[in-house]
Amino acid sequence: MDFALKGDILYSKSLNKVSENARSYLVCVDGKCEGVFKKLPSKYKGIKVYDYSGNLIIPGLVDMHLHAPQYMFIGLHMDLELIDWLNTYTFPTEARYKDIRFAKKAYDIFVNDLIHSPTTRFSMFATIHNDATLYLVDKLDKIGFKGYVGKINMDRNSPKYLIEKTEKSIKDTIKYIESVKKYKNIKPIITPRFIPSCSDTLMRKLSDIVKTYDLPVQSHLSENRAEIEWVKELMPSVKCYEEAYDRFDMLGSVTSTIMAHYVWPDEKGIELMKKRNVWVAHCPSSNRNLSSGIAPVGRFLREKIKVGLATDVAGGSYLSMFRAMEDAITTSKIRKCLYDPEYYNVTIEQALYLATISGGEFFGKVGSFEKGYEFDAVVIDEKSIPTVLMKELTVLERFERFVYRAKNKVKAKFIAGKKVI
Amino acid sequence: MDFALKGDILYSKSLNKVSENARSYLVCVDGKCEGVFKKLPSKYKGIKVYDYSGNLIIPGLVDMHLHAPQYMFIGLHMDLELIDWLNTYTFPTEARYKDIRFAKKAYDIFVNDLIHSPTTRFSMFATIHNDATLYLVDKLDKIGFKGYVGKINMDRNSPKYLIEKTEKSIKDTIKYIESVKKYKNIKPIITPRFIPSCSDTLMRKLSDIVKTYDLPVQSHLSENRAEIEWVKELMPSVKCYEEAYDRFDMLGSVTSTIMAHYVWPDEKGIELMKKRNVWVAHCPSSNRNLSSGIAPVGRFLREKIKVGLATDVAGGSYLSMFRAMEDAITTSKIRKCLYDPEYYNVTIEQALYLATISGGEFFGKVGSFEKGYEFDAVVIDEKSIPTVLMKELTVLERFERFVYRAKNKVKAKFIAGKKVI
Repeated sequence: MDFALKGDILYSKSLNKVSENARSYLVCVDGKCEGVFKKLPSKYKGIKVYDYSGNLIIPGLVDMHLHAPQYMFIGLHMDLELIDWLNTYTFPTEARYKDIRFAKKAYDIFVNDLIHSPTTRFSMFATIHNDATLYLVDKLDKIGFKGYVGKINMDRNSPKYLIEKTEKSIKDTIKYIESVKKYKNIKPIITPRFIPSCSDTLMRKLSDIVKTYDLPVQSHLSENRAEIEWVKELMPSVKCYEEAYDRFDMLGSVTSTIMAHYVWPDEKGIELMKKRNVWVAHCPSSNRNLSSGIAPVGRFLREKIKVGLATDVAGGSYLSMFRAMEDAITTSKIRKCLYDPEYYNVTIEQALYLATISGGEFFGKVGSFEKGYEFDAVVIDEKSIPTVLMKELTVLERFERFVYRAKNKVKAKFIAGKKVI
Repeated sequence: MDFALKGDILYSKSLNKVSENARSYLVCVDGKCEGVFKKLPSKYKGIKVYDYSGNLIIPGLVDMHLHAPQYMFIGLHMDLELIDWLNTYTFPTEARYKDIRFAKKAYDIFVNDLIHSPTTRFSMFATIHNDATLYLVDKLDKIGFKGYVGKINMDRNSPKYLIEKTEKSIKDTIKYIESVKKYKNIKPIITPRFIPSCSDTLMRKLSDIVKTYDLPVQSHLSENRAEIEWVKELMPSVKCYEEAYDRFDMLGSVTSTIMAHYVWPDEKGIELMKKRNVWVAHCPSSNRNLSSGIAPVGRFLREKIKVGLATDVAGGSYLSMFRAMEDAITTSKIRKCLYDPEYYNVTIEQALYLATISGGEFFGKVGSFEKGYEFDAVVIDEKSIPTVLMKELTVLERFERFVYRAKNKVKAKFIAGKKVI
């Protein structure tokens, strides 16, 4: 089922460079990109061509961090900071996913909205509940979404109605991993909620699972100043929060790791993050909504720390990675303008890089239209924005305008060569 | 043509207090609110009832500052700070409105989008061109929009293709005022662009016009740090930027005045703003996009400085006042969290207050559903957001969710009792 898309094609070549290809063809063979061509080469003669002339075609966007169960209260309760927000709103909602009927209804709504979003790959948190999480995995896998879904582990400092016994947490995790083995598109990821809700024993045993099953890790790191103080109290022997994960080999020393937020890096910790090649999932909307701060993305990029972009539903108040791009740009301007003039603003080119090839690398050859990359593409109906232009816009300018103005639904979506919508 | 709206009614009582009225009636008599009733009182028996059961009904939103001509490049060119942005993108676009054919096409698109937005009242900048501005006024007035449209004055430090001779600027302003006299809904407002682009002579003559015709004033104040420095150079004898306007009686000493932005208040100037009862038009999106900063709204509210909310199209990247509300909240959190812990976050209640009754006061009895207020109302289709709720949401919670999640088109709109959509 090889095919080509025809349209105005944009993708990121590197941090500051994009490839703009008006009226071109993007060819897919065996689920992989063959490249972008001004004219369809003769060797592809006869393949199906989807004609999206006048529309923009970009790589599928990579959401490095979101909480599927929290989608039920997205846009609500934006009045508290992290720890109070978790206890007041988040934990009671997540607890409901014990009820598989509630979970099915909620995940159906979530996945239906995700289909129409620009997201093609993700690393996602579910809840502690195996049944609900497996329902979510099954649904996502059948549609053709690619990525990681984690069953959460939490065995301390959590409310009675949403806490695991350490042994059960480990058993359920192994069961979960075994159950997900049959799926082709969705993979498990080890997901300790964050240091405050995971005992040392739990962390050690999860670390063993990581090594036994060779699985990646996702968690939260240095999101909120009160959280960081709490971690210091809980683990007085570590020099910084970063080291709290590293002590359990859960900071990239044995496997790929995503740490969400990283708003407040420690100067010693940031060296460790670099050394361990940890991915930072930058969540600009959430960090603003929960009064956490603004992560120093300009610094991360200059110091070559790996960064991907994320919505962080439902600390983040939208599912659309287009808005995450907008917010990565606008929050970086505020950070630079108000208190950190040393580092640069995120530009539209850099936002595209963060949302595609930069985060995409976590998933393999993902996030570009260069030959050999997995064929993740979304088509944007940008030509419907009414305007009287003074000059013809470049492909990049049209994309910038779409990011600021439109943002949600896409016209068509392909994941690893499969047409999803 | 008296009537009632039936639905879930929300409006602001004061800074921190809202009135929530599920399944209620809002009655309009002679274009004015009669109040909100749980049951329709018998004296209104037989009047037409628009049934919006399940929808939210809120006062029409007041956009205190936007540039109609800049809508043509909204969402583009977000890479520069104020002065460079004006010279590179804004001025060339505004210059095109000399061509009435261009202006008609552009304003048709703008007004069509404004109709479907939640905005009912506004104070708007046009360009220096009378013909184009009168076309805009005519269009807005016929639809039933209420508010102020200013022909811009600028006679110095501006590009050749967008500058007026002082005498012509004054003559055109008087002509413009005379031409707008025949309109019932749209009124003129004196609009010196900002101190850097207006000579002392121009400012003095505009001040005379203000007094002769008893007109309000709108301009820009303390948006960007480089701009403030420039004003100091241009008027070395004033103690602060605020005083630069006051010296010409253009800061509320003789008339109502709106000053857009006010990101960087001067400590002496802020006392003057209070004394003069100047309205600040808070433009959170624009101030972020152009790396201007975050205005201290918490402080303004605590010190009882008048504040309204604004989109500032096209420094702001959207036309929707719902997003202006979201951004007023989120930027205030960042300001408080990162460098100004003394003042409070803007809450959803306060955002509604800013966008309705607070800015509305500039226009008379506007922005509330209390008896005697002009009947500006918008109906929001919020019930279509799919969700599995754990409990019934309050009217305010539903509104909060809509502000974060939906944001653009409204289902119905009434301005001073006239049904616009």
